[in-house]
Amino acid sequence: MTEHTPTPALVTEHPERIPGYTYGTAQAAVSPLTLEDLDRLKAAVWLTADDEEALREAAEILADQADDMVTAYRARLGLQPWLGGYSGHPDGTPNPGYGAATKPRFDRWIIDACTRPLDRDWLNYQHEIGLRHTRARKNTTDHADSLDHIPMRYLLAFTAVVIATAPTYLAAKGASAEHVRRMHSAFTKSVMLHVTVWTRPYVDAANW
Amino acid sequence: MTEHTPTPALVTEHPERIPGYTYGTAQAAVSPLTLEDLDRLKAAVWLTADDEEALREAAEILADQADDMVTAYRARLGLQPWLGGYSGHPDGTPNPGYGAATKPRFDRWIIDACTRPLDRDWLNYQHEIGLRHTRARKNTTDHADSLDHIPMRYLLAFTAVVIATAPTYLAAKGASAEHVRRMHSAFTKSVMLHVTVWTRPYVDAANW
Repeated sequence: MTEHTPTPALVTEHPERIPGYTYGTAQAAVSPLTLEDLDRLKAAVWLTADDEEALREAAEILADQADDMVTAYRARLGLQPWLGGYSGHPDGTPNPGYGAATKPRFDRWIIDACTRPLDRDWLNYQHEIGLRHTRARKNTTDHADSLDHIPMRYLLAFTAVVIATAPTYLAAKGASAEHVRRMHSAFTKSVMLHVTVWTRPYVDAANW
Repeated sequence: MTEHTPTPALVTEHPERIPGYTYGTAQAAVSPLTLEDLDRLKAAVWLTADDEEALREAAEILADQADDMVTAYRARLGLQPWLGGYSGHPDGTPNPGYGAATKPRFDRWIIDACTRPLDRDWLNYQHEIGLRHTRARKNTTDHADSLDHIPMRYLLAFTAVVIATAPTYLAAKGASAEHVRRMHSAFTKSVMLHVTVWTRPYVDAANW
């Protein structure tokens, strides 16, 4: 897939100008979760005040690497031809326009995962992201010609790549091994919190 | 909850004697997944031959710490009273007998996650573990008086704790920082592979 590197300033300074990025707006979905649900999930991943501080530090280090991280994720995904139809056309052939449209939002997610307060806007936009992986809303934001549903198992499994590759990026600016460990632990918890909430649209309320 | 430390030899040397541990037997569930499904999930988490080697090394380091790891996980879970009914009695009061019954299997899972070949027996027993978290089979193995279903969101969210706390245990025997990083990366991928497969009973086949 051709990758169009977005203007860094778009992702870091003016996310509100990213097409389809509806964080904090009325265009985002309304999450069925309560703030108490969120507090309990935050406790379940064990995200502490120290982790939140470490995430802010990670954001400084990752911001100008976010686009490279997503490029690397996609290179890995590109080696799995059975996944091609989810990011490409339904027959798996490349769909560079779709890839270019989603990339600034994916880049921005990395920054958001380290910086956004966990509040009602967070809940709503994470629900929106979840919906955009499923038949409910996949492809609609970008009017894309692509398969209309990403199986939940691949969403979960790929989380391992996001978590396991993070130390290289966290270490890229010279942080000490202990500092990288601390930021990586916080990043792991944040990623799992996000991905957990993204699974809500896949599962009956009584099971989720 | 009172924790009864199991005999280490039971967990490490004679797992077949652990009550309710049906790995590799006809008593385990039959997974609906194919070996091709498994190969694709293994690719999705990016578990490489080098990771499998690192997992064998991790197993040597973790084997006699597995029980302590599970004790620590449960201490963390014990701080979340809204989870009490899943491991305790339905009203959340402690159920030490149930905790003691499940602990050797949980301990053994840590060793298995580092050592078991990814084959049909693996698929079947992971499906069994998934079912034992849900209304299909929770409580039946141990005839336990407890809530009959663990919401999927807590299963996923708690994965963050298992992954984020692993470096301390991996470093406990003096491995270098780079060796710990390598084993931690492999462990992360293995844990996500397991947890992904455990979610199968929670989700309709068309969504999973």
